[in-house]
Amino acid sequence: MASLIPVAEAADPRLDDFRDLTTADRRPDRPGGRGLVIAEGVVVVQRLVASPFPVRSLLGVARRFDELGPDLAGLDVPAYVTDAATMAEVVGFHLNRGVLAVADRAPRPDLDDLLRDARLLAVLEGVNDHENLGSLFRNAAALGVDGVLLGPRCADPLYRRSVRVSMGHVLRVPFAELPGAWPGSLDRLRAAGLRVAALTPAPDAVPLSRAGLAGERVALLLGAEGPGLSAEALAAADLRVRIPMASGVDSLNVATAAAVAFHSVGHP
Amino acid sequence: MASLIPVAEAADPRLDDFRDLTTADRRPDRPGGRGLVIAEGVVVVQRLVASPFPVRSLLGVARRFDELGPDLAGLDVPAYVTDAATMAEVVGFHLNRGVLAVADRAPRPDLDDLLRDARLLAVLEGVNDHENLGSLFRNAAALGVDGVLLGPRCADPLYRRSVRVSMGHVLRVPFAELPGAWPGSLDRLRAAGLRVAALTPAPDAVPLSRAGLAGERVALLLGAEGPGLSAEALAAADLRVRIPMASGVDSLNVATAAAVAFHSVGHP
Repeated sequence: MASLIPVAEAADPRLDDFRDLTTADRRPDRPGGRGLVIAEGVVVVQRLVASPFPVRSLLGVARRFDELGPDLAGLDVPAYVTDAATMAEVVGFHLNRGVLAVADRAPRPDLDDLLRDARLLAVLEGVNDHENLGSLFRNAAALGVDGVLLGPRCADPLYRRSVRVSMGHVLRVPFAELPGAWPGSLDRLRAAGLRVAALTPAPDAVPLSRAGLAGERVALLLGAEGPGLSAEALAAADLRVRIPMASGVDSLNVATAAAVAFHSVGHP
Repeated sequence: MASLIPVAEAADPRLDDFRDLTTADRRPDRPGGRGLVIAEGVVVVQRLVASPFPVRSLLGVARRFDELGPDLAGLDVPAYVTDAATMAEVVGFHLNRGVLAVADRAPRPDLDDLLRDARLLAVLEGVNDHENLGSLFRNAAALGVDGVLLGPRCADPLYRRSVRVSMGHVLRVPFAELPGAWPGSLDRLRAAGLRVAALTPAPDAVPLSRAGLAGERVALLLGAEGPGLSAEALAAADLRVRIPMASGVDSLNVATAAAVAFHSVGHP
């Protein structure tokens, strides 16, 4: 059981992992910072505790620790209890979710293991918006995607806002960087027996429902909202698929398009 | 062409339609307010101008009116030009999109017309979150939904935040309240030849891809994220369909689930 430790002073150095979360150059969850993973709110804290990420400590108001009770049973870390005002002073804003947990990063899953077993992977190029990335992980978790591979120019899925928007699913869905020169690195997916399908709004791409991906092992290539996939990435794919779209409408949000494609490929 | 009229004073009464947009009891776009429709930013203003909603006036900085130029050609209303600071003082917050348009509400489309011609409709129960509602309209527009019917306890699609999140598509996708006692009022859809399919996470519902909705005219019944559809609404549907979901994952966001279903029904 996590030890409940009352803390009265915002300046207490034991709370340093949670300090000034909004101050850009001090954010512990930013690349270049200490690389800590921060979970906000009861549901996300539950997912963090159940994940492979090693929890360092928790900070919250008494009521939230009551709610979390059973989830903290197997956890041998300090849980600092304070009031909402002190908590706000530490983190730098009022946190109406009332509880935070902080963890170190876990090692990434082994890429060969991930490729060998996966039936459906998402491969991202330039998905650099933290909220879109978080939503995409939430949708991947819901729709049975086996893992996410990060190509070039993607945001960090473990940044606080991504963790929150994903509802903690970035802590559950395995993900890893795809090493090697992009997009030649996609060859590694093909070598593992996956078909690489690029999602694009291009009118000459094949409609998803007629792409014949049923029963195939698929790596679905997704680009950022706006620019979409690069010409190089599109050229490196085995096929290009599209979601039939009404004319005159800007394309779907990338996480929404991903959800449509995950469902279509996984449940043809 | 809209007449460009320089305005120097935030207190100018000609700007009253745009005043204090964040002050809850004065918001012109709230039910109980003046019922005005407010569009923010170049793209949404373009959609408003192209919609059946009668534009009253515009307010913006010169650069945005330059961008809008051709879109305003057929419009005979005042376009008040000011600087960003004055604009912020009028609306009550800094508006980095730099242009607003305000319109009166247009009459709703005739329900019988909508029902007669529709191949795919969304019918909403209790979708009371403005952002979810806006996203849902954006997805409906992209995926070729012919109209949206509002059942009980839905938010106002023409509220400013819905308009913005929909990227203006609430101004393009026809919508109307479904009159009569809910959910008996769904009989009117059946009488018009539509099959009423309720989307639910219930494990005993039919997976979407096996529901046999291909080629049918479908009214897709959608409930709010969280509570979902009421028992009465579920019972009144012709069939219940589900998106196969990984275990242990909270359901998808309602607008995302709607997108998956729109695609699946429209493009089997």
